[in-house]
Amino acid sequence: MAKRRIHRKRTPVGAAPGTLVVDPASSPTKIDFFRYDSQDLVEKHATSVEALGKAVGGRGVTWINVNGLADIALIEQVGELLGLHRLALEDVVNVHQRPKVEEFDDHLFIVIRMLPNSTASETEQVSMFLGKEYVLTFQEKPGDAFESVRQRLRQHKGSIRSLGADYLAYALLDAAIDGYFPALERRGEDIEHLEDLVVAQPNQNLVSVIHETKRDLLDLRRAVWPQREMLNALMRQEGGFIEDKTRVYLRDCYDHTIQLIDIIETYREICSSLIEIYLSSLSNRMNEIMKVLTIVATIFIPLSFIAGVYGMNFDVKASPWNMPELTWTWGYPFALGLMLSVAAGLLFIFYRRGWIGRSSRSRE
Amino acid sequence: MAKRRIHRKRTPVGAAPGTLVVDPASSPTKIDFFRYDSQDLVEKHATSVEALGKAVGGRGVTWINVNGLADIALIEQVGELLGLHRLALEDVVNVHQRPKVEEFDDHLFIVIRMLPNSTASETEQVSMFLGKEYVLTFQEKPGDAFESVRQRLRQHKGSIRSLGADYLAYALLDAAIDGYFPALERRGEDIEHLEDLVVAQPNQNLVSVIHETKRDLLDLRRAVWPQREMLNALMRQEGGFIEDKTRVYLRDCYDHTIQLIDIIETYREICSSLIEIYLSSLSNRMNEIMKVLTIVATIFIPLSFIAGVYGMNFDVKASPWNMPELTWTWGYPFALGLMLSVAAGLLFIFYRRGWIGRSSRSRE
Amino acid sequence: MAKRRIHRKRTPVGAAPGTLVVDPASSPTKIDFFRYDSQDLVEKHATSVEALGKAVGGRGVTWINVNGLADIALIEQVGELLGLHRLALEDVVNVHQRPKVEEFDDHLFIVIRMLPNSTASETEQVSMFLGKEYVLTFQEKPGDAFESVRQRLRQHKGSIRSLGADYLAYALLDAAIDGYFPALERRGEDIEHLEDLVVAQPNQNLVSVIHETKRDLLDLRRAVWPQREMLNALMRQEGGFIEDKTRVYLRDCYDHTIQLIDIIETYREICSSLIEIYLSSLSNRMNEIMKVLTIVATIFIPLSFIAGVYGMNFDVKASPWNMPELTWTWGYPFALGLMLSVAAGLLFIFYRRGWIGRSSRSRE
Amino acid sequence: MAKRRIHRKRTPVGAAPGTLVVDPASSPTKIDFFRYDSQDLVEKHATSVEALGKAVGGRGVTWINVNGLADIALIEQVGELLGLHRLALEDVVNVHQRPKVEEFDDHLFIVIRMLPNSTASETEQVSMFLGKEYVLTFQEKPGDAFESVRQRLRQHKGSIRSLGADYLAYALLDAAIDGYFPALERRGEDIEHLEDLVVAQPNQNLVSVIHETKRDLLDLRRAVWPQREMLNALMRQEGGFIEDKTRVYLRDCYDHTIQLIDIIETYREICSSLIEIYLSSLSNRMNEIMKVLTIVATIFIPLSFIAGVYGMNFDVKASPWNMPELTWTWGYPFALGLMLSVAAGLLFIFYRRGWIGRSSRSRE
Amino acid sequence: MAKRRIHRKRTPVGAAPGTLVVDPASSPTKIDFFRYDSQDLVEKHATSVEALGKAVGGRGVTWINVNGLADIALIEQVGELLGLHRLALEDVVNVHQRPKVEEFDDHLFIVIRMLPNSTASETEQVSMFLGKEYVLTFQEKPGDAFESVRQRLRQHKGSIRSLGADYLAYALLDAAIDGYFPALERRGEDIEHLEDLVVAQPNQNLVSVIHETKRDLLDLRRAVWPQREMLNALMRQEGGFIEDKTRVYLRDCYDHTIQLIDIIETYREICSSLIEIYLSSLSNRMNEIMKVLTIVATIFIPLSFIAGVYGMNFDVKASPWNMPELTWTWGYPFALGLMLSVAAGLLFIFYRRGWIGRSSRSRE
Repeated sequence: MAKRRIHRKRTPVGAAPGTLVVDPASSPTKIDFFRYDSQDLVEKHATSVEALGKAVGGRGVTWINVNGLADIALIEQVGELLGLHRLALEDVVNVHQRPKVEEFDDHLFIVIRMLPNSTASETEQVSMFLGKEYVLTFQEKPGDAFESVRQRLRQHKGSIRSLGADYLAYALLDAAIDGYFPALERRGEDIEHLEDLVVAQPNQNLVSVIHETKRDLLDLRRAVWPQREMLNALMRQEGGFIEDKTRVYLRDCYDHTIQLIDIIETYREICSSLIEIYLSSLSNRMNEIMKVLTIVATIFIPLSFIAGVYGMNFDVKASPWNMPELTWTWGYPFALGLMLSVAAGLLFIFYRRGWIGRSSRSRE
Repeated sequence: MAKRRIHRKRTPVGAAPGTLVVDPASSPTKIDFFRYDSQDLVEKHATSVEALGKAVGGRGVTWINVNGLADIALIEQVGELLGLHRLALEDVVNVHQRPKVEEFDDHLFIVIRMLPNSTASETEQVSMFLGKEYVLTFQEKPGDAFESVRQRLRQHKGSIRSLGADYLAYALLDAAIDGYFPALERRGEDIEHLEDLVVAQPNQNLVSVIHETKRDLLDLRRAVWPQREMLNALMRQEGGFIEDKTRVYLRDCYDHTIQLIDIIETYREICSSLIEIYLSSLSNRMNEIMKVLTIVATIFIPLSFIAGVYGMNFDVKASPWNMPELTWTWGYPFALGLMLSVAAGLLFIFYRRGWIGRSSRSRE
Repeated sequence: MAKRRIHRKRTPVGAAPGTLVVDPASSPTKIDFFRYDSQDLVEKHATSVEALGKAVGGRGVTWINVNGLADIALIEQVGELLGLHRLALEDVVNVHQRPKVEEFDDHLFIVIRMLPNSTASETEQVSMFLGKEYVLTFQEKPGDAFESVRQRLRQHKGSIRSLGADYLAYALLDAAIDGYFPALERRGEDIEHLEDLVVAQPNQNLVSVIHETKRDLLDLRRAVWPQREMLNALMRQEGGFIEDKTRVYLRDCYDHTIQLIDIIETYREICSSLIEIYLSSLSNRMNEIMKVLTIVATIFIPLSFIAGVYGMNFDVKASPWNMPELTWTWGYPFALGLMLSVAAGLLFIFYRRGWIGRSSRSRE
Repeated sequence: MAKRRIHRKRTPVGAAPGTLVVDPASSPTKIDFFRYDSQDLVEKHATSVEALGKAVGGRGVTWINVNGLADIALIEQVGELLGLHRLALEDVVNVHQRPKVEEFDDHLFIVIRMLPNSTASETEQVSMFLGKEYVLTFQEKPGDAFESVRQRLRQHKGSIRSLGADYLAYALLDAAIDGYFPALERRGEDIEHLEDLVVAQPNQNLVSVIHETKRDLLDLRRAVWPQREMLNALMRQEGGFIEDKTRVYLRDCYDHTIQLIDIIETYREICSSLIEIYLSSLSNRMNEIMKVLTIVATIFIPLSFIAGVYGMNFDVKASPWNMPELTWTWGYPFALGLMLSVAAGLLFIFYRRGWIGRSSRSRE
Repeated sequence: MAKRRIHRKRTPVGAAPGTLVVDPASSPTKIDFFRYDSQDLVEKHATSVEALGKAVGGRGVTWINVNGLADIALIEQVGELLGLHRLALEDVVNVHQRPKVEEFDDHLFIVIRMLPNSTASETEQVSMFLGKEYVLTFQEKPGDAFESVRQRLRQHKGSIRSLGADYLAYALLDAAIDGYFPALERRGEDIEHLEDLVVAQPNQNLVSVIHETKRDLLDLRRAVWPQREMLNALMRQEGGFIEDKTRVYLRDCYDHTIQLIDIIETYREICSSLIEIYLSSLSNRMNEIMKVLTIVATIFIPLSFIAGVYGMNFDVKASPWNMPELTWTWGYPFALGLMLSVAAGLLFIFYRRGWIGRSSRSRE
């Protein structure tokens, strides 16, 4: 409920294209980088763009990770250092981009959306520039899905250290996409719980929760769906940024994205179905309530009428036709007996219609 | 509610193609123009088409902006001056065109729809002719989203003054598309407010508001959706009107349009969901109401029946079987006690079923 | 309601292809023709096919209009005169064809559907044969959307007289398509009226009207949708029947068709939405009705019970415990006071729940 | 209800491909054939496959029609005689194939689904092999839509006798497709009847009928939809089995199929709409019922309360405050008058709310 | 209800690609193989990978079937023996892959999903590697749909022994796809049963069953749908793994998959329709219940009121106006008569409205 859902564009409407304006609430900007080849690995915190400049261009692959988007000047300096297009930089700070890939002369610009952890309710934009020898990533705030990639780099695990920048880019994409799986598992568990609740104890609150879940899945779908097209474009990329060896890995990523979309769509259909179950459950309860009222009222209203008749004050003495029952010896037992048989008759009718047996059965 | 939604075609049905007929309520026609290159800028109000003729064709880029479509003769003169096709001119004055781009021999004809400001409820058609050295725009009425472009021209901000007419056209398209973002933010806020209301205090009025919002989003979608195809066609334009350098900017525009469509579709799905929530909320309230009636009636109807029985007038003296309870010493307390235990029993049954506790809980 | 909706095929099932069988209720066949070039215009009623034969083949363009399909022999003679394929002629008399274009050796066969006037509830098939120098049209019955084209021919208005048969065909197509706009405006007005009614005074009759409107839009969509594809095929026609100059006009027609489809789809979505509003409005009314019943019953049932208690006949003299209230000095005022406080208490509870205030507010 | 809807595969799961297994309930196999050219026609019942072998391969076109699939051995002999692929033969006896066309070296294999008559509720599979000089058809059971083709062959009607096997195949396809039109007309009439009923006398039975109609249309759609693709493939067939002259006839068939799909989709949308109308009609009736209850209860409950008050037994003699009305001269008329005014007041309120007038109006 | 629906990924999120991690609950790994040509057949249980190594590479076709995925080391050895890509092996042990085909240098990697038997509620992944001379399959657990293929191999049935590895792969695919048919028949029977129940005895439990069926169909659709694309890719495979002769068999497989999709979609539509029928049936029952209450209440409330009036205690002696009826000779009969005529009148009104007759009719 507290989620901020509205999609804001940070660049003032109508500003010159390439104007960088950031959300004042952005996290402070920090730059770390890795430089590695199959022998060595340097992991450093960059204190200045100059220091960064020296690192890039050396031997091996460099991964520069810019965390937090508050310091526009710094971001612009990084952009100048690596010759990035201003429109791409504008997309970096406007963190509501759809996943996409754009080709520039000496780098690819890739946007993906990442769930930093499985309880995160909002995706975070990761902007990635893939050059021949470097990968530059921009993240919105600290905390990401890339820790496993860092470990593999540090521990020389798998072939990541011996392959190029394109493989690193793949590894980061893969990590970001893999991060959706535990988040979806969590949603799956929530939905199974909702499925139980909607049958066992339906209440209006559930509808809000289902609606919230649907919105959440809608947001995830918006984040994941274009990733498919992006990966497809990346696999078909002819600019020399992606080596053939890496394409088979990207195909794997692509398969995972389709799996994600499949799961999200399935969950969305189940959520729609849940609303229907809830509505039918409400109608059913209403029927139960009305059955109780109808049975009670239908039985007692005629009885009360009989009692009312014998409560009339016609003067017994004025005429032999005036309520002779009142003075009968068995008058009262007769009246009670009449009531009893009316009640028994009505109960029998209700039983025959299945209202009484059925009502109690469906209650259990 | 007061919105005029019906889509009228101004040209009389069956008129010869190219016949220009305007809405009598059109705004009066005024012509302004900018002529600029990287050194100079002239901004003028055109008093006649002749004056305009002199301006165009000089050095640099000319932007002619025709505001208001009342003066057909003037529009026709402008059309003749720049050699515009009559069918295009007919589209200019029939202001219900879909966004599109059409190629003519010496200019492109582009139609977009613009939201002049974020509270506007209707889009306005902007017809744009892009020649090699000029941009000609027609607007329905004063007030537009282009003020920021004018400022950038006047203040020599960004690279707009040093680039060609195609970049100016891009800047105008971009400004028009950007204008949808604040409008959608506003809709987003409205929808979040509706989400709160539909749970907190559902009433029939909300349905009209949701319906109105859906219609509004339908209108926006109709305005935005074809813009995507239009920008795609523009990016692939081979006629020499668009320089390669500008294509990357148009791709940016295209991305924004897809973002707009994404947001609109999301909002539309949420609105559909809201109706469902409202309906379930109505059913829920009905259940509450019926529960109250059923509980009250079910408790008091048997009690009233007991009271009715002891209000019968059987003659106690005529027979010992006739209502001996009436003359018992503890008769009245016995009757009251009987009623009390019936009521307590029923209350217990309702409590067991969760109607009493649950009813009050779900009320909070 | 009285509309005949069922789609009948006139040719007996299994007849040899090209068998012409007409509805016995067809209008009688009349043939008119125009022959014109930029200097002269002849407008005549053709008395025989021979007369027609002389007319065609002369200088200029000939437009033959066959009105009414009752006279099969005549239609066959016309077909032979111009060398029309029998399958095309079969489509001419089976007036439930979808709009389409088919290329034959020396003519194009075009089917469109026309709304003769804005109040017409059913579309009429117009079958058009476009040769190099003639246009032949078949209509189901008198009354069409082509009067404006005739006027332009007679009055030498626009460029119609100086252009070829393809332009005439375009002019006829354009007139037929334009004829849908006023019809849709009328539907738009009806729908706006329905929108008001469904909120102000919902009743079951409205549902039938909305359903009828939806069916009507369904019929229009079926008539208009294939026109888009047909025009697209016509624009791409390579057979030499369409000159390049005319293509730009056909593109305009195509745009209009897309606009029509847009409007129809919007109206259809609004109609679906109206049903939802109506249903929610019904539910809301039910809530109101039940609230009234519940309030009245809940207040008076306990009061009646109190009255019933003091109407019991326990013998006051038999015991001091038997209803001593009956002989109290203030017994009756006490009972009335008790009733009053119960009623006041219940009213207060209903007020607190917002049932009383809210119910009256939402009633206004 | 008695329809068998489940889709069974006859070949045992996992059998070698090309295994022929038939439903034991299949009709007995009978073989008829026509051999004709423009001069002669032979129509015979084939007693053995050898006799058949002599017939085929002679001058002219041969149409072999195998009716009933019980005799596997015979079907296999026919298959060997004409060199048919075993997979195709498997499809022949597994009569739940979708319409399709498959090209083999010396014949085309075409599957269509036919409605033998307009009241048939299930489609029947017709498997057709089109060679250069023969057409071989397999039908599930006696009774088909091909009688008209036989008549045209016998009576030398149209050009069927002078054209090749491809034209005969077209004629059979056309007859099968045409057979859907009367069946759909019948459904159309049923739906119009349902439309009337759902407004006039909605009852739960209607829902089953509408559901049944929807299922029926679903089945028809499954039978017709792939026919479109099949005809498209047939028209584009390059294997020399279809002559150019016949393609224009297939285009006609294709148009009819699209018309069928159009009609089916329209009917399906109407059926969906009918359910909505029925539901709204139910809600409306509920409102009516509740209005009656509410009016009656709301009027009489207060009246009964007044009667109850004056039925209390407070001792008039014990105190002057105790129900002095009872001994007033005009006490009884006063009480009746009080009741009358309460009733009149309530009636007036209901009238003002439009419940009374409206209720009776909407009832008519 | 006990089904585990959540989609887990076994490889830890962020692990290096190609890391094999298996579910600890996996079945133990067993390897069997067949080696055959048209003369000989060897069927063996492989005790070691070395033994396997000797078998493969010999004359004829080898089918290695690995059953159970618990022994990672063994799977890796098999992978090394045949030179399989680690990404493919990762997919083998992550058993939630979608059906797909991927081409590697010397084998195709095919994933399909199989229903081991018709009562299975979850599909099982089968990973298949198709080399020039071998087929390697991995299954999740014992029990599969391939027994019939084994029989055909052993019994030299059909042409399977004389054809290559591609035909064996086809035979396995075909067996897996055929396995869906009996499972869908079972679902079809369940749905027909639900159709009967939803009309005959609708209760809330049915909704859960329908929902469960819909989820089940959703799962099946997710398993079957991508098989279509996979088979299409396989048929168009250009790598030399599939011989032309086998393509016609794959086309047959492809047709079966489309039939499966058709059936699943039909069933899904019917399930959606069933919910609607259930909801309308609930509404209808509610109407019935309310009708009973309304009829009973409406008849007895006025009668009770009359009895109440004559139960008032106005003092007959105090005034001649005070309830003179009480002392009339025919007072009591008059009162009873009055009640009787009111009841008769109301019954007549209800009958006229069709509530009584209709209510009882629709009850049967």
